Amino acid sequence: MSERIEINEVSPRDGLQMEKAFVPTENKIAYVDALSACGFARIEVTSYTSPKAIPTLADADAVMAGIRRVPSVRYTALVPNLRGMERAVEGRPDEINLVMSVSETHNRANLRMTREQSLAGLQDVLREAGKLGLPCNVSLSTAFGCPFEGEIAQAEVLRLAQALADSGAAGITACDTTGMAHPEQVRQLSTVLQQQLQIPVTIHLHNTRGMGLANALAAYGAGIRRFDAASGGLGGCPYAPGASGNVSTEELVHMFDSMGCETGVDVDKLLEVVGTLSGLVGRPVTSQLAQAGTRLRRYAPPAWLAEKFPHA
Amino acid sequence: MSERIEINEVSPRDGLQMEKAFVPTENKIAYVDALSACGFARIEVTSYTSPKAIPTLADADAVMAGIRRVPSVRYTALVPNLRGMERAVEGRPDEINLVMSVSETHNRANLRMTREQSLAGLQDVLREAGKLGLPCNVSLSTAFGCPFEGEIAQAEVLRLAQALADSGAAGITACDTTGMAHPEQVRQLSTVLQQQLQIPVTIHLHNTRGMGLANALAAYGAGIRRFDAASGGLGGCPYAPGASGNVSTEELVHMFDSMGCETGVDVDKLLEVVGTLSGLVGRPVTSQLAQAGTRLRRYAPPAWLAEKFPHA
Repeated sequence: MSERIEINEVSPRDGLQMEKAFVPTENKIAYVDALSACGFARIEVTSYTSPKAIPTLADADAVMAGIRRVPSVRYTALVPNLRGMERAVEGRPDEINLVMSVSETHNRANLRMTREQSLAGLQDVLREAGKLGLPCNVSLSTAFGCPFEGEIAQAEVLRLAQALADSGAAGITACDTTGMAHPEQVRQLSTVLQQQLQIPVTIHLHNTRGMGLANALAAYGAGIRRFDAASGGLGGCPYAPGASGNVSTEELVHMFDSMGCETGVDVDKLLEVVGTLSGLVGRPVTSQLAQAGTRLRRYAPPAWLAEKFPHA
Repeated sequence: MSERIEINEVSPRDGLQMEKAFVPTENKIAYVDALSACGFARIEVTSYTSPKAIPTLADADAVMAGIRRVPSVRYTALVPNLRGMERAVEGRPDEINLVMSVSETHNRANLRMTREQSLAGLQDVLREAGKLGLPCNVSLSTAFGCPFEGEIAQAEVLRLAQALADSGAAGITACDTTGMAHPEQVRQLSTVLQQQLQIPVTIHLHNTRGMGLANALAAYGAGIRRFDAASGGLGGCPYAPGASGNVSTEELVHMFDSMGCETGVDVDKLLEVVGTLSGLVGRPVTSQLAQAGTRLRRYAPPAWLAEKFPHA
């Protein structure tokens, strides 16, 4: 269990894009800087989507320019298309993250394109990024199920992942966008993706039905060592109203820590940052782990105990 | 994956004993009857603890007398001591459940006895129950950690489990009373308990730090086929204030269902019962799975989709 698990903290992008209130640019920068001190392998800082589509991240340029970079962290940003990539390059990300859905209906609803159009567009970005030597990861949404279509065929995930790998993707992320994955499915898809692809596979989980950490455990058992997660479990999906957010980073790190696995993330520092989230987003953010404390948190025994058992 | 998983629904006892408001006897009976229709292997109906100690379950006799029994369900009740067993026998439980802590401090705080006194008392009950042919399971609290003492030595769990098995216990339950267990620990303790004991081992989990289902998955992987769980995640521990309740039955069943494992429990029926919990206990009970729906719940695509993609 000595191989390091790489955590990609996605809350600055995947979390904040879902918030109703615009988080001031300087607060976003301070938040990313605080995360940088926690020991993450990667931080997804922002998105170069059109400000009209996602106004909450309209300040992508300013945020990328304002953060203080720690050499051990790779700073990534989401890029929707060639135009977004051109903007992104100015921000000097260490890598970029592209996205499309495995489900045709979800791709149309979320990206307003067919999968064919999305694939062609991402292949354009991969080609141009390749010329610049900029590594591109591709996130495949709804890889474990779609809230419109239901089950998603594993063969479709593999087909798209392979096409993107062949076009130069540096990594593939299989996303459980609305928390439909179960451990056996995660084990299977993790296994075949790693068997088929020559590039690293990341798993992106949501905790919608309580299975977030169980799915992470199944992925780990299948050899996965890269995970997306969002502090405080921020995020969600606009097309599945009951859906809760991403698997919470602090709980993921705490589980792997407890098991003796190395993540590089300091859970106590991270819990301090999690304590600032409600202030950051302007609504109460409940973190189960922050409330309970880490597993070895000690309580004082009741005061009457010493009286009742004087010779203890 | 064909071997059936046996779920012991503990909410009528372990859940309701923690509620502030007294649930009227007829409502308790109706609740147990509704659970009986869901397909559980076992239901822990009540506790024969002193009404002074746990006033919320003071109506144990009336509840046991009032429920309609389904032949496929084994009805159990918690029994603290010989006096409790004498009362319990009148209620004709199919089996009884005894309890003590692996942690000395927790045993003193929770049961107001030393472990030595508890062990001797339970051995008396086991002997008398044996004469009546009444099967006794023993639940070992704080088997994965104690909020007062911290880590608990696996050897201590084994020592007490063995002593109780030698005295006639029909089964041992290892309880993660305050949600300190992690998957690697669950895998290890599940393995050695099953290796050492000749009687069935049940795992009792809490979801305090989000690891409830991950721990259940680890136990399942180690061969465990018996789990305690509480609908709606009711329950908790008075000595660990931040601690949330038991692992929620609906999420446990839903995970195993999704994985293709047989539990015998009808998750849709169970979710209907979970929908009555807030009314039963008189406070809002949040069930993540009830909110999100089972994993294949479908949503209608946005209405504009057909317009934007007319030739789809």
